[in-house]
Amino acid sequence: MKPNNDAAWDAEPSTLLRVGENFRLSDVDADATPGFVGGKAAGKKELKAAADDLDEKQERLFAASKVDATDAVLLVLQAMDTAGKGGIVRHVVGSVDPQGVALTAFKAPTKAELSHDFLWRIRKAVPDPGMIGVFDRSHYEDVLIARVRGLADDAEIERRFGAILDFEQELASRDIRIVKVMLHISADEQKARLGKRLDRPDKHWKFNPGDIEERQHWPAYQAAYQSVFERTSTEVAPWYVVPANKKWYARIAVQRLLLGALTEIDPQWPAADFDVEEQKRRLAAT
Amino acid sequence: MKPNNDAAWDAEPSTLLRVGENFRLSDVDADATPGFVGGKAAGKKELKAAADDLDEKQERLFAASKVDATDAVLLVLQAMDTAGKGGIVRHVVGSVDPQGVALTAFKAPTKAELSHDFLWRIRKAVPDPGMIGVFDRSHYEDVLIARVRGLADDAEIERRFGAILDFEQELASRDIRIVKVMLHISADEQKARLGKRLDRPDKHWKFNPGDIEERQHWPAYQAAYQSVFERTSTEVAPWYVVPANKKWYARIAVQRLLLGALTEIDPQWPAADFDVEEQKRRLAAT
Repeated sequence: MKPNNDAAWDAEPSTLLRVGENFRLSDVDADATPGFVGGKAAGKKELKAAADDLDEKQERLFAASKVDATDAVLLVLQAMDTAGKGGIVRHVVGSVDPQGVALTAFKAPTKAELSHDFLWRIRKAVPDPGMIGVFDRSHYEDVLIARVRGLADDAEIERRFGAILDFEQELASRDIRIVKVMLHISADEQKARLGKRLDRPDKHWKFNPGDIEERQHWPAYQAAYQSVFERTSTEVAPWYVVPANKKWYARIAVQRLLLGALTEIDPQWPAADFDVEEQKRRLAAT
Repeated sequence: MKPNNDAAWDAEPSTLLRVGENFRLSDVDADATPGFVGGKAAGKKELKAAADDLDEKQERLFAASKVDATDAVLLVLQAMDTAGKGGIVRHVVGSVDPQGVALTAFKAPTKAELSHDFLWRIRKAVPDPGMIGVFDRSHYEDVLIARVRGLADDAEIERRFGAILDFEQELASRDIRIVKVMLHISADEQKARLGKRLDRPDKHWKFNPGDIEERQHWPAYQAAYQSVFERTSTEVAPWYVVPANKKWYARIAVQRLLLGALTEIDPQWPAADFDVEEQKRRLAAT
């Protein structure tokens, strides 16, 4: 990462935001901007400045897979409504080459999907080597909304936690680096954002009366997230809780987490598997 | 489109580049920049300036589909190697929200794909309502490389032309607006670009010795493209041949073609299908 941008971070989100032991979601201040020195203007500048770095690392990841590297990245995005998943996809993921990104938005499961195990549709979307996979919602809905709305009983939720741990371990052993992000907003912030959607005719399509029902289950969702963090923040697939009342902060924090994952992979331009000089002669002869 | 950017175009690529009767590929100057007043610097400025317009129209297209609109766009990209399909995806398509784009890169067909009709894998990638679908290569490979390399006999090529015409007519009747683009470079320009890939270690992964074999079939490919244009440039699915020796021109021309397709669809923000004031009251009570 470029030293001049590093100046804006005085500590890494990968350390500060990581869910470790004794983590309490209720202790997280959704307004905070951990590790970043500066306000909104500096944050927007940082997003732009780091985009080139992300772009190059993504291209290296993609290129390396064309020879023999098997590395991939999987970014899992979870959040309450209006927390800004779409903005992360648009402004962070959207800055890299679309050819290197596999985005899957998981909606309420279809009848066909419900007839299979909950991981069936998830497995089909696991990124290939060289790709950055992005899950907009994920298998975690099956232990979140499923729990809050009573779509699965306790025994089934337990079984799913076990299946998720096995699944993520398997992905990690296939060189898929998993970055799990929960964008954390406050209930008041959500109220304000839903209000804005209702005020603007060009945002009405994003509003669903069901959003207000979901909102009434806020404490139950926070408790369900707390369980998720306790059960599934592991060495190979840690959770990061990103304060998201300030959209600009959430974006640069997730960008930095992605950059960190790619830096650890450290993908290299693959060596030519042909004789370069010979190919130059062949080309010259055409 | 914004009037201040329109100043840079003195005629529409949708008219100038469209394949009509008596079109001859061999008459097209790959160095030309039809309709655009200005050079590389002005072109790069135009790409950036028009990106916001594309972005808004794409979001409207997406939003409209959430209520009842069935419109979609399908951009088909075909070209000789190195002509810049990847650059179009990255710099034109890449400027819109990834959530509204469905990109499919068609490689040499797998065994499973070969066991089905050639349109089988294509049908699976047709964009849903509200989406901009992008085909990086397409069903046209099945009448291009298939013809040049003798992978299908004349009768089969004929059958495929008929099937393609039926297929595209069917898509059009489902409100999918089809924009077919051939990026046209000269043989000399390809030689220079392949040479650059060989010169730069960070580009070696993009080079394949097979590219030189393909290059030796250049005249046969040009003839195959000529047939494609004669047989498949229709009212509902016209071809546009975009001069592409100047990458900046090809990008703004394709961007303009996409903008034109979206302008014709003219998607509108959908009206709320709920009572806005009632929802405001419900929200206030939470």
